[in-house]
Amino acid sequence: MRVSVTKESLLHALQHVLKAVSVNHLIPILSGVSIRKDQDALIFTTSNTNMTIEYRISLTTSSTPEQEDGAIVVPARYLYELVRKLEPGSIRLETTEQWILLLSSGDAHIRLCGMDSTEFPTIQKTDRHKVASFSINNAVLKSAVRQVASAVSTSETRPILTGVFFEWKNEVLRLIATDGVRLALRTLTVEQSAAIHVQGVIPGVNLYEVSKMLKDEQGTTVIEVGTNQIQFTSKELQVQSALLEGAYPSVEKLIPQSFSSELTVKTVSLLQAVERVSVLASGSIIRLVVSGGSLELLSQTAEIGDVLDQVALLEKNGEDFRISLNATFLLDILRCIDCEDVRFRFTGIMGPLVILPQDLSASMLFLITPVRTAN
Amino acid sequence: MRVSVTKESLLHALQHVLKAVSVNHLIPILSGVSIRKDQDALIFTTSNTNMTIEYRISLTTSSTPEQEDGAIVVPARYLYELVRKLEPGSIRLETTEQWILLLSSGDAHIRLCGMDSTEFPTIQKTDRHKVASFSINNAVLKSAVRQVASAVSTSETRPILTGVFFEWKNEVLRLIATDGVRLALRTLTVEQSAAIHVQGVIPGVNLYEVSKMLKDEQGTTVIEVGTNQIQFTSKELQVQSALLEGAYPSVEKLIPQSFSSELTVKTVSLLQAVERVSVLASGSIIRLVVSGGSLELLSQTAEIGDVLDQVALLEKNGEDFRISLNATFLLDILRCIDCEDVRFRFTGIMGPLVILPQDLSASMLFLITPVRTAN
Repeated sequence: MRVSVTKESLLHALQHVLKAVSVNHLIPILSGVSIRKDQDALIFTTSNTNMTIEYRISLTTSSTPEQEDGAIVVPARYLYELVRKLEPGSIRLETTEQWILLLSSGDAHIRLCGMDSTEFPTIQKTDRHKVASFSINNAVLKSAVRQVASAVSTSETRPILTGVFFEWKNEVLRLIATDGVRLALRTLTVEQSAAIHVQGVIPGVNLYEVSKMLKDEQGTTVIEVGTNQIQFTSKELQVQSALLEGAYPSVEKLIPQSFSSELTVKTVSLLQAVERVSVLASGSIIRLVVSGGSLELLSQTAEIGDVLDQVALLEKNGEDFRISLNATFLLDILRCIDCEDVRFRFTGIMGPLVILPQDLSASMLFLITPVRTAN
Repeated sequence: MRVSVTKESLLHALQHVLKAVSVNHLIPILSGVSIRKDQDALIFTTSNTNMTIEYRISLTTSSTPEQEDGAIVVPARYLYELVRKLEPGSIRLETTEQWILLLSSGDAHIRLCGMDSTEFPTIQKTDRHKVASFSINNAVLKSAVRQVASAVSTSETRPILTGVFFEWKNEVLRLIATDGVRLALRTLTVEQSAAIHVQGVIPGVNLYEVSKMLKDEQGTTVIEVGTNQIQFTSKELQVQSALLEGAYPSVEKLIPQSFSSELTVKTVSLLQAVERVSVLASGSIIRLVVSGGSLELLSQTAEIGDVLDQVALLEKNGEDFRISLNATFLLDILRCIDCEDVRFRFTGIMGPLVILPQDLSASMLFLITPVRTAN
């Protein structure tokens, strides 16, 4: 392989693929990045077995003859640190017979010991017979993932809950995440109609990493779903993730169909009040008391002190109520709800609190299971 | 105590004094901040026994009658987090008999459990009979501290080396730090002439924290030296630090008076080259080879690779030479030398490498002891 690329494009490629590099992987080659020169592109691949990322830098064919094609795997972190510190401008990459990658730029000459790339994982073509494919706007996908991400479980006790459930049916895509105490549901409209009913569970961290890589908010991502893997393609970037095995719990029956009170408050006022009371919230537990025209928030930490704050109600239907819940969960929701006003639906002292944007067309719903407290 | 202050001034005061708060101190009261209302000021004090910080917010006497004076100690971190999250504007502070501090702002009401402030350390007046006092421009003090800070030892094996030695003699203030392998010396001109020869050793971390607090680069800091303590006063801020006990090693004989070669290079070119080669520097050790008109830099990590870079010499007197040294030490120096060109003086294969700014009037000098390598 012999090729020249700019520092900026090389850095850009490495920044994307680094996300799938494991620092101390049992398989040493996976701490590397595979660099492959094809006819008209330089292709960077990394994999942690569960997620594989590929990034292509297009090359002008005239400048790089085909006989200079080839591939090598080199330590990803070292390569990234080195490239970051090279001077702006052109960097020349060249491989030698003994799996050595030579990089040169200005007066700097770097030799990196590499490995044979033939054993490196590549992105498998999804099984064409069982594939469903649709495209979605990046900004929409990013906001949807952000909204469900915090409800994903981080505990391995029920591995299926570390994933995000997705379901494509007719023209609707639903994303659901729950850790057993809270739940987030987001519905998106997809321009194509699903030929078949497609569903699966993607590891939450992989979906979140993909969403963060989609910098171009105007752009579009093509999503292809296979039997046990899912693939995201957006311009130079391609990410393949395994799907989680096992059945995702049915959440339909968890979503309350009725409620005894409903109220609306300004999202930002509530967010700031919850941030204040959460400072002295022992075990993150705060108390919400709805009475008259206001929502009171209370917290207490033994031997330190307590906070009392309140937020005006914009609207209220139904009875006064009081409920205790985890302030962190509420903050996660209020920070991503993207709506000026937020609606609470109270379903009983031990029923889940339903949180919705005031604008119901925004198609999202959050649940928090309350905490049982002494009084 | 009953007083109203703006969120901004309260936050500013807390940000300064937080530096002396220990999170898990053996003496519980020291995790607190003392708040004392005097006739015309609200005074915040924290202390970790070794350093005491005081910050004053001036009050208009008319608005706060004297009978409302008083003091309390409250948990510093909690208070800071709470104030940070309050709405901009006025915050009312009030103490009750049972050592409770009430804070209110808008609809938020906070109760913080406090302690009696009579046992809290305060800044002692330095012994007027043994005091030396001078003032110095903040920007000059900050740059001088930054230049010597990285040479301060972080190991407790020789506690005296965790300090910065200072000496005021005639119109000159010298700061010296060494960890036994490297040394930094900075000389400053002081407008007053010392009546007596003053010297001492201040804990390096305390001096560094003080320098970071001096935000106003145009301003001046008054430094008062007592027998076992030093005090810095700059506007609303006052910091007192203990001095280290014990004799600081005499460094005069460590500074080479002659050299066999001298060279000059562009500081930024060398800095960038050292950053590049240090990525693959095993144990941070890099090799410098001066031959002909260039300075070559080399590094190597077994099984990963090597880097070779070079920097053009602007000037050279004397023989070619080669030397191995710790790249981190060299980077620390190059990042704070504040001079376009840097001068190296080679004093022999095992003699210290002397590093100076090209502009000798800048009055600073750095030494790095080289590393003995196989070849």
